[in-house]
Amino acid sequence: MATIDLNSDVGEAFGPWPMGDDEGMLRLVSSANIACGFHAGDPRAMRATVRLAAERSVAVGAHVGYRDLAGFGRRAMDVASEDLIPEIIYQIGALQAIARAAGTTVRYVKPHGALYNTIVHDTRQARDVATAMAEVDTNLVLLGLPGSQGLIEANKAGLATAAEAFADRAYTPEGTLVSRRQAGAVLEDPVKVARRMVQLVEDGTVESIDGTDVKISADSICVHGDSPGAVTMADRVYQELRGAGVEIAAFARA
Amino acid sequence: MATIDLNSDVGEAFGPWPMGDDEGMLRLVSSANIACGFHAGDPRAMRATVRLAAERSVAVGAHVGYRDLAGFGRRAMDVASEDLIPEIIYQIGALQAIARAAGTTVRYVKPHGALYNTIVHDTRQARDVATAMAEVDTNLVLLGLPGSQGLIEANKAGLATAAEAFADRAYTPEGTLVSRRQAGAVLEDPVKVARRMVQLVEDGTVESIDGTDVKISADSICVHGDSPGAVTMADRVYQELRGAGVEIAAFARA
Amino acid sequence: MATIDLNSDVGEAFGPWPMGDDEGMLRLVSSANIACGFHAGDPRAMRATVRLAAERSVAVGAHVGYRDLAGFGRRAMDVASEDLIPEIIYQIGALQAIARAAGTTVRYVKPHGALYNTIVHDTRQARDVATAMAEVDTNLVLLGLPGSQGLIEANKAGLATAAEAFADRAYTPEGTLVSRRQAGAVLEDPVKVARRMVQLVEDGTVESIDGTDVKISADSICVHGDSPGAVTMADRVYQELRGAGVEIAAFARA
Amino acid sequence: MATIDLNSDVGEAFGPWPMGDDEGMLRLVSSANIACGFHAGDPRAMRATVRLAAERSVAVGAHVGYRDLAGFGRRAMDVASEDLIPEIIYQIGALQAIARAAGTTVRYVKPHGALYNTIVHDTRQARDVATAMAEVDTNLVLLGLPGSQGLIEANKAGLATAAEAFADRAYTPEGTLVSRRQAGAVLEDPVKVARRMVQLVEDGTVESIDGTDVKISADSICVHGDSPGAVTMADRVYQELRGAGVEIAAFARA
Repeated sequence: MATIDLNSDVGEAFGPWPMGDDEGMLRLVSSANIACGFHAGDPRAMRATVRLAAERSVAVGAHVGYRDLAGFGRRAMDVASEDLIPEIIYQIGALQAIARAAGTTVRYVKPHGALYNTIVHDTRQARDVATAMAEVDTNLVLLGLPGSQGLIEANKAGLATAAEAFADRAYTPEGTLVSRRQAGAVLEDPVKVARRMVQLVEDGTVESIDGTDVKISADSICVHGDSPGAVTMADRVYQELRGAGVEIAAFARA
Repeated sequence: MATIDLNSDVGEAFGPWPMGDDEGMLRLVSSANIACGFHAGDPRAMRATVRLAAERSVAVGAHVGYRDLAGFGRRAMDVASEDLIPEIIYQIGALQAIARAAGTTVRYVKPHGALYNTIVHDTRQARDVATAMAEVDTNLVLLGLPGSQGLIEANKAGLATAAEAFADRAYTPEGTLVSRRQAGAVLEDPVKVARRMVQLVEDGTVESIDGTDVKISADSICVHGDSPGAVTMADRVYQELRGAGVEIAAFARA
Repeated sequence: MATIDLNSDVGEAFGPWPMGDDEGMLRLVSSANIACGFHAGDPRAMRATVRLAAERSVAVGAHVGYRDLAGFGRRAMDVASEDLIPEIIYQIGALQAIARAAGTTVRYVKPHGALYNTIVHDTRQARDVATAMAEVDTNLVLLGLPGSQGLIEANKAGLATAAEAFADRAYTPEGTLVSRRQAGAVLEDPVKVARRMVQLVEDGTVESIDGTDVKISADSICVHGDSPGAVTMADRVYQELRGAGVEIAAFARA
Repeated sequence: MATIDLNSDVGEAFGPWPMGDDEGMLRLVSSANIACGFHAGDPRAMRATVRLAAERSVAVGAHVGYRDLAGFGRRAMDVASEDLIPEIIYQIGALQAIARAAGTTVRYVKPHGALYNTIVHDTRQARDVATAMAEVDTNLVLLGLPGSQGLIEANKAGLATAAEAFADRAYTPEGTLVSRRQAGAVLEDPVKVARRMVQLVEDGTVESIDGTDVKISADSICVHGDSPGAVTMADRVYQELRGAGVEIAAFARA
């Protein structure tokens, strides 16, 4: 039976401000990327979300980001290694303790926002992420874009990696993401999105923006968590995959 | 041979702002209370200080505080349990990961500033601290004021505790600290302070503010870290204790 | 014709996190309490909300709070005068510049959350608020609870004041607010709430929790902004008042 | 008589952390760049520094920066206009109110750190700074690098500008700053630095790194504030200029 992981960003509340429908999302996904307080998430939100994830046997990942709450970690920042490495260790460690208290474990790391994008190409920051992870726990898996410097540096550091596809993003014929600035970059029809993902799991391909099929290697599918209709789309993806006999299971297990 | 622990607050830099002489202090103390980012300390400072502590075999403790950087955690805050418990877990966990990366371990917890003072009397916040510690690691020791609610609740939660005396503070004949608002509350002569501490270790007493000796139970002596002359005074205490044949050793060991 | 002001908390978004329906609320109220970045609100949110208020000729007030984003300014904090006074000046000034850029002016100050509650009784913090206001602009009006230390100290400092009633809160027979911990403290029926406010404006009384009428002196009515159904209730209050021939107008005008 | 302005960064304390010798520096400079809380400075520090500046008739400028306390505003950030413009308005306004309370006025704006460097070349962020300034007060002067996009955009927006030279920085034969990464970029001999500045004021030239003189247009000389020996060097520059009959006076006056 074919198997795939579904991952989503959760635990992104802060103080009085909620974000997303974590309860709805954690009924569907197999991996939960939990914000660790630097771009979003506060200890209370982290604890509540980790507990929900533990109850539902969803794998817990550290969604680490730049220290930029006002910008939600979406702004490129030139953070020196001597800051970035301990900041990532700090975030992972904070989540580890919260996970331990909830009877679960941090299995993987997924960088967030601008850090995610930066380590696609930036070797130095990619190496910093890998260094931080290896210093904390060599069993941590790095979840990221296939072919990215992030995954390359993680492998060099002896870490396992997992590649992800984006359910609602268009791909170029070369297999890279169509830039969000381009028309058609984000897909909005839940049924189409869901069927693409079935094709991805069954054939290892998606239809690219010019209509040709392109090979995509993915251990996990990212379903977005914070847009309106997020749970509806995730649910559609989940249902189509299950209907096609695909098992939804975490790439990183105990 | 008599043995006592010396503890001090270190790692209190933030961003571009240094604080205290951590290098000097870590040559003297056996336990390092390391700020965890909420009232002071950033991941870079935490990492640098933990590494120094590990090199010198100084025991590492989590100096947890209220989320109040501008006020250095010195302002009383009415933080609800649903925030305070995960905030303490978060801070301990962040330090644990940084300690692990440096080849050492967090052995104890010492609340900082207003949180320290609050849990002398406030049973609810005291219990929150104990709950957080027990959820993270039942081997953690709580370092605090003898007779405080903090130590009482920690014991109730099955945790070990350590009581501390303050090297440079005057005591009442009842064995409590003289309020800082009172004249003579803070002692400034390093030699007198050092000799008091020798008496404390040898006889279990200090001369109180009215001249009578009072019994003080202490597993550790706190030497302040952030005042001018802090290292000079700590050094004097260290030298007098060593000269009297007292061993300086962490109360919490591997 | 009878006249009353309606005020509400707006501009409470932060970074990626929205809060409340500012557009809906600013169609109804005559005074907008705008968060100034310490407990909520960031410069972008402040600017967007002030522009909306300016377009609709809604009077702009500085909703100043403690520096506590994670706690939304709702936690009592023992902030020293040497911090509190400049913090309030800072917040008012930031809003003044944003207001000026939008072609309007800050007319009044309403403390938020724990600061609001503290200055009902705490003379020192009440005086700090008044001092800060007087140092910035002696034309600023303090909006607060009738009989509170805040209003008393503002008057002593030569400032004008405005007293507010709460549309959805029950009153004791003595004219004070029923504590939120008590059953019946918060009224939920929009029609009842609206009719109470008509009676308040017409007769200067509301029905207290034991059924007797009590005199309440109010220049403004506070309608809450961040609960679900907030705009619906505010709209009901607005409609009933207008239906009864009451003019809705800011207490503080150019 | 020749006249020049001396400017320096002050008010960079935060919470419990001091920085620099503001008192010493404000005895020497004619313009004080005061941190506004985003990269450094808190309301208490701002107030204390503005009061000192007012007492000594030193012109007050808003030292505005990115929202990055941990990085001291020294990290390049890709901040969108819809955030950057109101953030600058906010910072200026906060300082204006504090200045007003101290009986003085904000005369100019000097961007800090990474924002300063970015608007040397980045037209969009340069325009954002100018837009923000023009929206707050068209009398504000922008202090920056001669020939920078910042000054160009400020002029386009109808604002006056002032160009600054750096006392302790080496210049290329083309009149640009030698990169800090290059040897010899920072001059350390106070006497040499001071004599260069006399030549700058008298002849409009400095000796460049290759020994040839280069023309430098400057309305102000920046003396650094936060390095050890900062006041000593500033004092030397001040004394040499005064000894050469140069008047030290703010470029921006009431």
